[in-house]
Amino acid sequence: MIDPGFTTTEMEQIFSPARRVAAFLEFEAALALALGDVGIAPEDAAGAVAEACATPLADPEAVLAATWVEGTPLIPMLTELRSRLSASDAEWVHYGATTQDAVDTAAMIQAGHALEVLDGRLTGLARRLAPLVLEHRDQPQTGRTFLQHARPTTFGVRLAGWLDPIVRQLVGLRETRGGLVVQLGGPVGNLAAFGERGTEVMEALARRLGLEAPNLPWHTDRSRIFEIAAAVALVGRTMGKIGLDIALLAQSDVGEIRVRAGGSSSMGDKRNPIDAIRAIAAAEACGAAAGMVANGPAHELDRGLGGWHVESIALPMLFKTASAAAESIGGAFDSLEVDTDRMTLLAGPEAKGLVLDPRMIDRVIADFDDVVGDG
Amino acid sequence: MIDPGFTTTEMEQIFSPARRVAAFLEFEAALALALGDVGIAPEDAAGAVAEACATPLADPEAVLAATWVEGTPLIPMLTELRSRLSASDAEWVHYGATTQDAVDTAAMIQAGHALEVLDGRLTGLARRLAPLVLEHRDQPQTGRTFLQHARPTTFGVRLAGWLDPIVRQLVGLRETRGGLVVQLGGPVGNLAAFGERGTEVMEALARRLGLEAPNLPWHTDRSRIFEIAAAVALVGRTMGKIGLDIALLAQSDVGEIRVRAGGSSSMGDKRNPIDAIRAIAAAEACGAAAGMVANGPAHELDRGLGGWHVESIALPMLFKTASAAAESIGGAFDSLEVDTDRMTLLAGPEAKGLVLDPRMIDRVIADFDDVVGDG
Amino acid sequence: MIDPGFTTTEMEQIFSPARRVAAFLEFEAALALALGDVGIAPEDAAGAVAEACATPLADPEAVLAATWVEGTPLIPMLTELRSRLSASDAEWVHYGATTQDAVDTAAMIQAGHALEVLDGRLTGLARRLAPLVLEHRDQPQTGRTFLQHARPTTFGVRLAGWLDPIVRQLVGLRETRGGLVVQLGGPVGNLAAFGERGTEVMEALARRLGLEAPNLPWHTDRSRIFEIAAAVALVGRTMGKIGLDIALLAQSDVGEIRVRAGGSSSMGDKRNPIDAIRAIAAAEACGAAAGMVANGPAHELDRGLGGWHVESIALPMLFKTASAAAESIGGAFDSLEVDTDRMTLLAGPEAKGLVLDPRMIDRVIADFDDVVGDG
Amino acid sequence: MIDPGFTTTEMEQIFSPARRVAAFLEFEAALALALGDVGIAPEDAAGAVAEACATPLADPEAVLAATWVEGTPLIPMLTELRSRLSASDAEWVHYGATTQDAVDTAAMIQAGHALEVLDGRLTGLARRLAPLVLEHRDQPQTGRTFLQHARPTTFGVRLAGWLDPIVRQLVGLRETRGGLVVQLGGPVGNLAAFGERGTEVMEALARRLGLEAPNLPWHTDRSRIFEIAAAVALVGRTMGKIGLDIALLAQSDVGEIRVRAGGSSSMGDKRNPIDAIRAIAAAEACGAAAGMVANGPAHELDRGLGGWHVESIALPMLFKTASAAAESIGGAFDSLEVDTDRMTLLAGPEAKGLVLDPRMIDRVIADFDDVVGDG
Repeated sequence: MIDPGFTTTEMEQIFSPARRVAAFLEFEAALALALGDVGIAPEDAAGAVAEACATPLADPEAVLAATWVEGTPLIPMLTELRSRLSASDAEWVHYGATTQDAVDTAAMIQAGHALEVLDGRLTGLARRLAPLVLEHRDQPQTGRTFLQHARPTTFGVRLAGWLDPIVRQLVGLRETRGGLVVQLGGPVGNLAAFGERGTEVMEALARRLGLEAPNLPWHTDRSRIFEIAAAVALVGRTMGKIGLDIALLAQSDVGEIRVRAGGSSSMGDKRNPIDAIRAIAAAEACGAAAGMVANGPAHELDRGLGGWHVESIALPMLFKTASAAAESIGGAFDSLEVDTDRMTLLAGPEAKGLVLDPRMIDRVIADFDDVVGDG
Repeated sequence: MIDPGFTTTEMEQIFSPARRVAAFLEFEAALALALGDVGIAPEDAAGAVAEACATPLADPEAVLAATWVEGTPLIPMLTELRSRLSASDAEWVHYGATTQDAVDTAAMIQAGHALEVLDGRLTGLARRLAPLVLEHRDQPQTGRTFLQHARPTTFGVRLAGWLDPIVRQLVGLRETRGGLVVQLGGPVGNLAAFGERGTEVMEALARRLGLEAPNLPWHTDRSRIFEIAAAVALVGRTMGKIGLDIALLAQSDVGEIRVRAGGSSSMGDKRNPIDAIRAIAAAEACGAAAGMVANGPAHELDRGLGGWHVESIALPMLFKTASAAAESIGGAFDSLEVDTDRMTLLAGPEAKGLVLDPRMIDRVIADFDDVVGDG
Repeated sequence: MIDPGFTTTEMEQIFSPARRVAAFLEFEAALALALGDVGIAPEDAAGAVAEACATPLADPEAVLAATWVEGTPLIPMLTELRSRLSASDAEWVHYGATTQDAVDTAAMIQAGHALEVLDGRLTGLARRLAPLVLEHRDQPQTGRTFLQHARPTTFGVRLAGWLDPIVRQLVGLRETRGGLVVQLGGPVGNLAAFGERGTEVMEALARRLGLEAPNLPWHTDRSRIFEIAAAVALVGRTMGKIGLDIALLAQSDVGEIRVRAGGSSSMGDKRNPIDAIRAIAAAEACGAAAGMVANGPAHELDRGLGGWHVESIALPMLFKTASAAAESIGGAFDSLEVDTDRMTLLAGPEAKGLVLDPRMIDRVIADFDDVVGDG
Repeated sequence: MIDPGFTTTEMEQIFSPARRVAAFLEFEAALALALGDVGIAPEDAAGAVAEACATPLADPEAVLAATWVEGTPLIPMLTELRSRLSASDAEWVHYGATTQDAVDTAAMIQAGHALEVLDGRLTGLARRLAPLVLEHRDQPQTGRTFLQHARPTTFGVRLAGWLDPIVRQLVGLRETRGGLVVQLGGPVGNLAAFGERGTEVMEALARRLGLEAPNLPWHTDRSRIFEIAAAVALVGRTMGKIGLDIALLAQSDVGEIRVRAGGSSSMGDKRNPIDAIRAIAAAEACGAAAGMVANGPAHELDRGLGGWHVESIALPMLFKTASAAAESIGGAFDSLEVDTDRMTLLAGPEAKGLVLDPRMIDRVIADFDDVVGDG
């Protein structure tokens, strides 16, 4: 069990063994159908393979465990799959493909689902935050630089400064999702089994799965995985930043805001900002997950020695922790109470004369409207 | 489920929710007994508390989940614990302590078990490797620097170069284990509940748990956690290095060794060095886990905001991945076949005249004998 | 002195103290002119300030060193600048701005130059690589997965697999460059000095500098810096991957390619692939530089406590190391000799029947033509 | 120029090109003398080589730059060195050694100097801190957990909590320094040039340099480098933690302490805790430097492909940044003003009854006395 602080229910489901193996099967079904689409496989056989893939495997955990025993999770999976088919239809199972084709495409399928969930999380945060920006547009607050009181500002500008990156990162997540590609290359990543029709098969596969087709197989060019990791890690960073700001403003010594309080085993009256704490912790773990991809070993020639395999722990961790961080910030937003009197008091008399350009906030809200809208 | 490639059965058990909560209870029992030892709590009450702690909690996962709901896993645990006791005995439950005391001490208890397991793994590796060093002492092999043939060496020297850090790191793991300390400080880490007897209670607690007593509580001085992470990550690094060397020597283009082969979903005849691959991947994840501790946020004043909580994902991941890496290298050693003819051939005629100082290997073996012995 | 292995002449110049302080002055000049553009400052005064900024400062190193003595490099700079002006003109120096405005905008100016240099490096690599892809389009080579011989492929497909990410990353670098923004916010990041005209001033500043204007100041939203770091680190990663492949193919045990050889202090005949080595080392350092930004402390409220300052070491290191890695790969490409006989031999007879889809390479070359062209 | 915020004068000197090349020469001199000691080289020749090494090289920067041109800095160095000798004496220059022997041993020599400097820094911090611990032993302060007021403590306990890890890490640095080893192995790391006397030469070399002799060459077992990095990074971490605490206590909203203030380019009255800021930034950079060693590529077989070279940027950066962080904390300590009235006020009336065990502080001071003493 991963500590529930570092995951969410939705992400646990998406990255469960059952769903991972289901994504392998989704690849195999789509590959067979793609071969049918381009006329390499008989339509009937392609359909039969796809139908065989429609039934989940009996023991997905055993399939995944085989990675480390047999060297690939696909050997037991393909054995079970082929046993569901006639000998002639079974020939079209995994035709021309290699393990990494299924594993990478499954990772992209799962990433698509996970990006959708994360999009929903950020959308929810933005919808909660946008009215707060407007509500507190003119609420004076002291600006704090290096944690020293500096000059007055408004709580609205601060909140807009949280909303702006969320909206921009939503755009980033959608671009990332739109750029997810299939993997298909066969044993050495050159589509050799399909002769001169390799690209055609890859494109048919991409159509079947609603993914993009790359120029060529990318077994050891992990740029795309790096880009996913960067986009998601950036969300984690932003959650960590907001979490820290919440904790700083909720300090007893500041007391400008209050958020849902976790308790204490020793002090019944403590108000620990547990959601901010969780966001900070999860964001840190998210960065570590991204680092496994970003700073891991380069992938040797046509298949990475371990540098590839580490993605199977890194990518789930990346999405789980980012989602946990976003969920936590949602909890903090939902329970946010603003002590406007104290905020005004600490901002001091100088705040009275403060005139800010409304376009700053207007532009952030306009982007919010464009990207998130009313739903 | 964590991918089985990145963990081992033993470590899954040590870091299971049940065992984690059991370690919390172990702390609470020992604390009560320590209070009895020094005469703060009545002996009877102390014994009653310890007995109440002897029965596992009904739902350890719910206890851990409470971390993120109630802000501490201890609130539900203490409620259940107190319900097992008379009102007067219940007063001595968690007396003078805070959540972090239980959580950190439990982490140290678990680290102790995990270090023991890792010690066993490395001991096993050393025992497998030492005879190989002696067996291949004079086996010529070409030295490869920057992957270029350089001058002849022996396979024995290479293997001794793997054994030497394993033996030194065993010493390091034992020092680390011997230096594990209790945590006890109460709400703000000053042992205030015990007045002038704070250190005495802490020392009694340490005796009860077979751990060391620090000079003072270390709630936000995470040096000790850093040191554990460094010692274990170093083991991971060494496993990764050995794994890479195995993969390099097992290359088709080199062919000097063969190890247990994982299969291929597309090529029945491939010999993928799956254990080396797993070791490299697990070592990478181990480094990321250590990084969460080593490069995470500093802990603010008297309790870390998230920087502390991230340890609850980092430490289990650290030990699980290190153990997986060591297990994998064990698999590679167990299946190692050396093609001495090919090794000799590639070493070339120059190897004939090679005279090396036997003391290099003798010293490694002597250290092995000192540290590991025959068991 | 930074080790010359981890930098290039161009990047040393861009990130020299003189150029950094020059970029501060460029900000101050543009700010004054922008204030003139929108009618806040008198045109004459604005012009006088800009002219005063046109002369370099006497001792840029002392200015930078003041960061750590006086807390900001701007105090000595502004003193010198104001001494060049009449009292009334001097009032418009740094008007409404804060240190971070100058420092962040200067970082963006420098990043623009550095991205241009890196673009040139990658363009050069792509131009060297594209003809190699076509030259070796049909050159048989054994595919190596997990460093085991697998099935035949072509050297052309391998080279196309190097070219494709370079071309895509060129697009990414250009998007990054096009998205560089000014920083302007004043003491607490709300443009308060300009009242209702804050955004207008920011936009005028952006126009003067050829940068974009953000929605609002981003003093503690470091997403944009993260994105720069990610784009550049990805280039580093790709260089590291290509470097590793070169070293692997140049192994004595493989011998399919030769590259410029570094010498050996002990073996006159060794052929160490020094450019590949440097690329791998520089790529690693590049990842570490990116990590300082990606995993550093969140920035507190309105100004980061150290998390901001670390960017002043991280960003130069990021660009220098990426550039060094790219320069090294260029050295390797320039000296690449392909032993086609050996490559064909190792590919084996099976390679004779290999038929690959030409569209894979055609699509990579088409993208190359679109993005790089003939220059 | 490295930003002066991330280095100190002493460390710049130790890691200057001149000193690095001087350390190469120190290795070459000691090797020749060691060969004389054991009777392999004639005493006269050994002495002549050592004498030739006593004169610095003309252009150390060019020597280092040769790393990336000729593949090793030693080729130009040895050429110059041999030109100073008769042909027969010149034969004993670099006899039996390889580039990495000189480079690694030089790194150890430099690390020895750098550890000494860092020891001095920490000793200075401890000497400044110990009297503060005693002075503020009974000074009430509110404890802050999760930045919430919790229960009263004393400023003395907080300061003791800073001193304790400094003292323990001093011990760690000294152990690290005491364990520094020579590198000697020759082309493939087996001491082959010395036949059966390899270990003897290595031991003689170690004696000449005041370093330890390992069991066998460790060209690609980088455990020792990892351990140095870990010990120094831990110092960095501790500085970062103290820096953060200082910044938190110096917050305008807290105001319990004041430290030397950096100024502001926009607000003449601001008191930015510039030393704390620098410590945090330098500590972050220190962690990144350690990460290059800790998470870099494993070293392939008998010489690392880039994973080794990255140490030449990582180790200087590690020491420079750690030293900068310590220097900064020294600046903060030197300027520390404690507002005891405010501290007492915020601690509240509950602090009146606070009784703490004096042994906590006594034990920390006792360790300080043991380890640091009066000098």
